[in-house]
Amino acid sequence: MADARCAIADMLVRGAPLIGATAAYGVALAMRADPSDAGLDDAVETLGAARPTAVNLRWALEDMAAHVRPAPAPDRADAAFARADAICAEDAATNGAIGEHGRALFDALASKKSGPLNVLTHCNAGWLACVEWGTATAPIYKAHAAGMDLHVWVDETRPRNQGASLTAWELARAGVPHSVIVDNAGGHLMRRGLVDVCIVGTDRTTARGDVCNKIGTYLKALAAQDNGVPLYVALPSPTIDWRVEDGDAIPIEERAATEVTHIAGATADGRIETVRLTPADSPAANPAFDVTPARLVTGLITERGVCAASADGLRGLFPDAQAA
Amino acid sequence: MADARCAIADMLVRGAPLIGATAAYGVALAMRADPSDAGLDDAVETLGAARPTAVNLRWALEDMAAHVRPAPAPDRADAAFARADAICAEDAATNGAIGEHGRALFDALASKKSGPLNVLTHCNAGWLACVEWGTATAPIYKAHAAGMDLHVWVDETRPRNQGASLTAWELARAGVPHSVIVDNAGGHLMRRGLVDVCIVGTDRTTARGDVCNKIGTYLKALAAQDNGVPLYVALPSPTIDWRVEDGDAIPIEERAATEVTHIAGATADGRIETVRLTPADSPAANPAFDVTPARLVTGLITERGVCAASADGLRGLFPDAQAA
Repeated sequence: MADARCAIADMLVRGAPLIGATAAYGVALAMRADPSDAGLDDAVETLGAARPTAVNLRWALEDMAAHVRPAPAPDRADAAFARADAICAEDAATNGAIGEHGRALFDALASKKSGPLNVLTHCNAGWLACVEWGTATAPIYKAHAAGMDLHVWVDETRPRNQGASLTAWELARAGVPHSVIVDNAGGHLMRRGLVDVCIVGTDRTTARGDVCNKIGTYLKALAAQDNGVPLYVALPSPTIDWRVEDGDAIPIEERAATEVTHIAGATADGRIETVRLTPADSPAANPAFDVTPARLVTGLITERGVCAASADGLRGLFPDAQAA
Repeated sequence: MADARCAIADMLVRGAPLIGATAAYGVALAMRADPSDAGLDDAVETLGAARPTAVNLRWALEDMAAHVRPAPAPDRADAAFARADAICAEDAATNGAIGEHGRALFDALASKKSGPLNVLTHCNAGWLACVEWGTATAPIYKAHAAGMDLHVWVDETRPRNQGASLTAWELARAGVPHSVIVDNAGGHLMRRGLVDVCIVGTDRTTARGDVCNKIGTYLKALAAQDNGVPLYVALPSPTIDWRVEDGDAIPIEERAATEVTHIAGATADGRIETVRLTPADSPAANPAFDVTPARLVTGLITERGVCAASADGLRGLFPDAQAA
């Protein structure tokens, strides 16, 4: 359990779904060590504090506690592992469904043009952040597996370069044609007709469809709108925050300046080295997310299908959802 | 002359005005080596090919040729050095005037708010790119020297990080308060009301006011418009290309992928080390400039004053200019 807590807190695992899955197994490991009520409470509290803002983490822990607590102590470890397995299976099924819905959108766009479908994505919403498929990458993998001719523009996604490192790595492993670009390049590519569709994930989407995602998403959404390029957001329903309407009400995490001023990479002789990119006497600011207003989002791709980025659109797909 | 060509092509010198000045001295060095007509033609051609997008380069070379060609061969080197000196003096005077016109705009904006005037800039259009003052930075230095309370958001400007390295360094030397940010962050800062004005330079501006500048400028211009933040472009008149109306007709330089995949920085023990940021099997694309359409530009700050980004605006300030 301590290992699971460290993995979440130190971001050895990242991405909302994977954080939830890791926490679920963290509870299961805790039940193996101490299946008492006190042991369960301690696991939920300790794991929950690892990333206090992660919505999926809280959701997974509450779900685990609800499933484990009714069992007698000797059965709790087995119950916990079974429920953690189920959470992972549900996550894979959710992302698989998102992939199919998104692939249908890609098919429609590809049918209108010749040559490869050019997809632009920002950050990493791939399977490295999930159990399987990823969210924004799920339609890419489904379309590639179905034989579609596509090419992905991968925003490097400063400051932590999740695109240049994680998404590019995923796509290369899967054999999906792609090119890494700096975050500055997407607008130009759209002006020149070199992007057919943008697709991104989200950390939190509000009840009216405002999308909080990795910093820089908003700029791509503006460029997409200015050039008539559709921008879709892939989101498993647990990332919808039914309690919030206005995206600008979401507090934006300000992370360490060193993420901007320093970067790690591989040297020619294979060592990992961290280098400073800025003058020692220049401060840096590092807001980690931004909010893309719903008016800039063409559609939301959920496990239940695609809807408008609006209160009506989301309610139409999730009439049963409650602002808990 | 070969040194000047390398300095321009390999970006040992960069920034439109400094490229022009370097090319001018390149012609002078060529005249010292071979003052024949063939030598002059060769210098103009060789230097002109070093950076295709740079209109100042062509302007400076044509200006040099016009001044040097009438002189007898033995006098051409002296004539060329004299003219190159004059180009540098004119550049300093031009940027000083831009600084004063821009400072007046800053004063007007600062008078409408309390606290520091927050200025966002992209790339380096500072004195490191010029002979003196810089272009986009000239109003900043003039305002700071006049005691204005201001703070500059410095876009790091991937892939070559001219903001994080050059602009931040310049501002730190001058004691101007500033913060380095990733290129992704500016849109979010504008949404939160933390940017009062954007100011950038330009590599080439068309006769109708379309602005070709460092990749990523367009994205900031979109965000500025979406948030009602004025965006000014500082441009010495030699960067106006009177022969081109439509910015999208400007060929965009595609630079080496290694500028995206690798980056150099300082290690903890003070060495300069280059590290790879992407998987070895992931290709990268690297368009170096983009075009910001005139509709997104609040005004052009020239040495003759501020005008609308339009054919009429530019003609009003430069009625004598010719589409050569």
